[in-house]
Amino acid sequence: MEFLKPHETAVFALGGLNEIGKNCYCVEHKEELLIIDAGIKFPDDNLFGVDYVIPDYSYLMKNQEKIVALVITHGHEDHIGGIPFLLKQVPIKKIYAGRLAAGLIRNKLEEHRLLRKVELIEITESDVLKFKYLTVSFFTTTHSIPDSYGLAIKTPNGTIVETGDFRFDFTPIGEPANLTKMAELGARGVTMLMSDSTNSEVPNFTMSERKVGKSIRSIFHKAEGRVIVATFASNVHRVSQIVAASIQAGRKIAIFGRSMENAIRLAQELGHIVVPENTFISEREINQLPSNEVTIICTGSQGEALAALSRIANGTHRQVSIIPGDTVIFSSSPIPGNANSVNRVINLLYRAGAHVIHGKLNNVHTSGHASQEEQKLMLQLIKPKYFTPMHGEYRMLKIHAKTAVECGVAEENNFIIKNGDVLAMNCGRVRLAGTLDSVGDVYVDGNSIGGVGNVVIHDRKILAESGLLLAVASVDMKSRTLLSGPTIVSRGFVYVNESGSLMHNAERLVRERMKETLASSKKTITFTDLKQSFADDLKKFIVEQTGREPMILPVIMDVK
Amino acid sequence: MEFLKPHETAVFALGGLNEIGKNCYCVEHKEELLIIDAGIKFPDDNLFGVDYVIPDYSYLMKNQEKIVALVITHGHEDHIGGIPFLLKQVPIKKIYAGRLAAGLIRNKLEEHRLLRKVELIEITESDVLKFKYLTVSFFTTTHSIPDSYGLAIKTPNGTIVETGDFRFDFTPIGEPANLTKMAELGARGVTMLMSDSTNSEVPNFTMSERKVGKSIRSIFHKAEGRVIVATFASNVHRVSQIVAASIQAGRKIAIFGRSMENAIRLAQELGHIVVPENTFISEREINQLPSNEVTIICTGSQGEALAALSRIANGTHRQVSIIPGDTVIFSSSPIPGNANSVNRVINLLYRAGAHVIHGKLNNVHTSGHASQEEQKLMLQLIKPKYFTPMHGEYRMLKIHAKTAVECGVAEENNFIIKNGDVLAMNCGRVRLAGTLDSVGDVYVDGNSIGGVGNVVIHDRKILAESGLLLAVASVDMKSRTLLSGPTIVSRGFVYVNESGSLMHNAERLVRERMKETLASSKKTITFTDLKQSFADDLKKFIVEQTGREPMILPVIMDVK
Repeated sequence: MEFLKPHETAVFALGGLNEIGKNCYCVEHKEELLIIDAGIKFPDDNLFGVDYVIPDYSYLMKNQEKIVALVITHGHEDHIGGIPFLLKQVPIKKIYAGRLAAGLIRNKLEEHRLLRKVELIEITESDVLKFKYLTVSFFTTTHSIPDSYGLAIKTPNGTIVETGDFRFDFTPIGEPANLTKMAELGARGVTMLMSDSTNSEVPNFTMSERKVGKSIRSIFHKAEGRVIVATFASNVHRVSQIVAASIQAGRKIAIFGRSMENAIRLAQELGHIVVPENTFISEREINQLPSNEVTIICTGSQGEALAALSRIANGTHRQVSIIPGDTVIFSSSPIPGNANSVNRVINLLYRAGAHVIHGKLNNVHTSGHASQEEQKLMLQLIKPKYFTPMHGEYRMLKIHAKTAVECGVAEENNFIIKNGDVLAMNCGRVRLAGTLDSVGDVYVDGNSIGGVGNVVIHDRKILAESGLLLAVASVDMKSRTLLSGPTIVSRGFVYVNESGSLMHNAERLVRERMKETLASSKKTITFTDLKQSFADDLKKFIVEQTGREPMILPVIMDVK
Repeated sequence: MEFLKPHETAVFALGGLNEIGKNCYCVEHKEELLIIDAGIKFPDDNLFGVDYVIPDYSYLMKNQEKIVALVITHGHEDHIGGIPFLLKQVPIKKIYAGRLAAGLIRNKLEEHRLLRKVELIEITESDVLKFKYLTVSFFTTTHSIPDSYGLAIKTPNGTIVETGDFRFDFTPIGEPANLTKMAELGARGVTMLMSDSTNSEVPNFTMSERKVGKSIRSIFHKAEGRVIVATFASNVHRVSQIVAASIQAGRKIAIFGRSMENAIRLAQELGHIVVPENTFISEREINQLPSNEVTIICTGSQGEALAALSRIANGTHRQVSIIPGDTVIFSSSPIPGNANSVNRVINLLYRAGAHVIHGKLNNVHTSGHASQEEQKLMLQLIKPKYFTPMHGEYRMLKIHAKTAVECGVAEENNFIIKNGDVLAMNCGRVRLAGTLDSVGDVYVDGNSIGGVGNVVIHDRKILAESGLLLAVASVDMKSRTLLSGPTIVSRGFVYVNESGSLMHNAERLVRERMKETLASSKKTITFTDLKQSFADDLKKFIVEQTGREPMILPVIMDVK
């Protein structure tokens, strides 16, 4: 890092700034590089066909000998989902993670056959990781997944606190947040706080998880038919409350969806969910019990087309379909891009005769992220000199910084930075030192990392909007004769049977232009000449006739 | 209608049931057919490249000699947007509409060169349309566009009330709702009420439009730089409040966006917006005034990529870019599918230094649709014997019907029906009589109505997800020789320069399979044989190598 002095400590992010997702933060001092989290982001609707988005790991590849460890704050996909892709590109010796996160990571590594490539070490709150220059300690936070930690990273130039994702739930299910440890960190002096900005636009306090349990219990109390609950598999406390409400109401529980099965198995192993024997039943046993003795916990709370709930709703699930009188609870809130899919599933459920409970009005869901008053509490406990809002879109970072100023951080000590910007810590002072090259989004599609770039996405966009028109011809370039074609083939453009004359006229146009070009007095004719001879005219013709602009793809074969 | 007795009155919808949008309701008695509204629906994210969705007008085409008129409740696109497409398919003599709606329809007809095809007649609340069997009268409602009416349709078998879109705003901007006329209708006896279900899930009362004005005035009062307000062009009362707040704050107003310019011109002509001379300024004059004397009212409140606000936000607008200190108000709420686009624009605005005000928390927007208490008021005023919730997705209709039961409609007198279901009215009694054929969605893409069907959309979906792989070859089918190719061309699949060996191996595979087939002992070989010889193997190869499933398109040319 040419813009850093040798004794300075660098703090930067490869992902997680100006975006929700693909969190990846780094602290580097001399020959020591510590990575915090390695998440994925789910693609937005403009990224046709992309499965995941991960950070560009170029910097880590180039500096792989410096990497001392990857430390994980908690087990959500936007913090651990990128690990397999990272390990495929960058050798990392040690991953440190809390118990549940470690369990989820282990599953992931097994699936990608990477278990032998890395040492996965479980940590607890009292562990301290000591490297040559950097020391990492942990404090328990409350979040929508157990075993969530904030980190304090002691460096030769000052202490950084990274909150991970958090909220303050004073009546939590599971471990309470360690306010004492946070206060002690603050008392000892923190140079810079990096804090979760997801809900920085939301005033007040986030509702307690315990209140959600109360609402769910009251729904179970009233329900006369089966109760089907969809929620996030990793929200173990939520699942444990649903399980408890179910047992209390005298119901057996069937679990649908692979990620839900895995999460509940893991949560039982770790003691987060404790149930009497015979609580869980198989899919087949559902129909042997009266409706009011059955609960189904399933995936699909985001309306995902292939998840259990969607298949139950549209009648394509093998074991279960909706019986009038079923109660379906969405214990979740749709992320913005999924609102339409969720609505579709809700309508299908209503239509099949289910009673559907969703939305915040019913108190069946609460966020795992700090609202403004909780962000202020964090700021007041840690009392940092410098503040970097992280994990949020630009507007969230901006508003979080405003909140920090209200809590006493000097205006000029706020750093709203972007991925790749490097903060330099120097004896308790922080400055923006420079920006890394090659930072950005890398698309994962199928099993290829990065094979799908902006050109491919751009083509997909055109194909999605208007389809494709293919003009194929065989030509003898020596004798300058058209041997076969041109034939026009289309996909995703018009319904061909009803557009015979359109296609016919397009073919005629291409044929005439090609013949003119072949008969021209030009000495040599190239494929490019031939293609250009009709491409523009064909495009114009199609736009005039249809008002649409499909991708036009001329393919000419030379037959010697 | 074979399932109807000759003296019965039919009531049905071609659009607007189990969906938001493309409203089109019909009342038919003997040789008289009345159409209420002709709207469009905007496509959801699964309808790649479709511009609008309109109803299948087959029934109207087949019964065109019966049509006496098209009556419009109000001027929103989901009630008037389908008129040009309807007129292109079905001759209609007369359209009746309130003043603003008539103005908006006139623009539309001019644009589509349809003005001479139909007589457009402006109505007021006191007009009564008398046909041979049917009589239509109007009552003023409050909604997010002026000149909104509910309809009472007197038929030989009873009276139907169709609310149009409505809410009850007791402190409205503009005309108040005519509660008296509604109460009188109720007192005289209404057989069936068809009522707006959009907000049937929302408890309480919708906030008054006047309160929005108050919030906007207070923002203008505090703003030190320019104020840029984005809202729906047709929400004339909103625009008039923004204009008034602006004048009060001593600011001149520039208008950006064609639909906003049209709407404000029309609203001025109709007296909805009254301003002193020199209130409006041109785009060029903006930069000649101090910031605190400028207001910009523009389109783009839904984050539409080409609208004025998006271009201002991303710096591609010719006249205006954001100056730090600008205040931007989204006086709107994003419809579910647009949340991501709106967020993108908000982030850009923040990044450019604007202060952005959006969302319901700031009271800068309110809905134009009745919440539960308002729906109850309508039910209590009209006191219908039968109830059909309309204009809403299934879950909204279902919940609205529940509300109707609470207000005294007998459970069995609720009809939650779908587009095409025909209710038969017979001497004050209503029954579900049957269902029309060919009812459904018709896609408009470019200038083609219906040319894009499900096959085309399905192809676009595959192309959008994974792109296309084209295998082209020239063959002499007589001598069974491969003359040229196979060549593999891809679009939207992989970045070709980085995937040379993949393409090379795919070509080799295709060549081998084709040669085998050409050399086989089979007597005659068809194109289909040749294509099939490699299609499955190529697909398998690609899936194995990439984990993706592009569309595979074999094109073989016979060169004689």
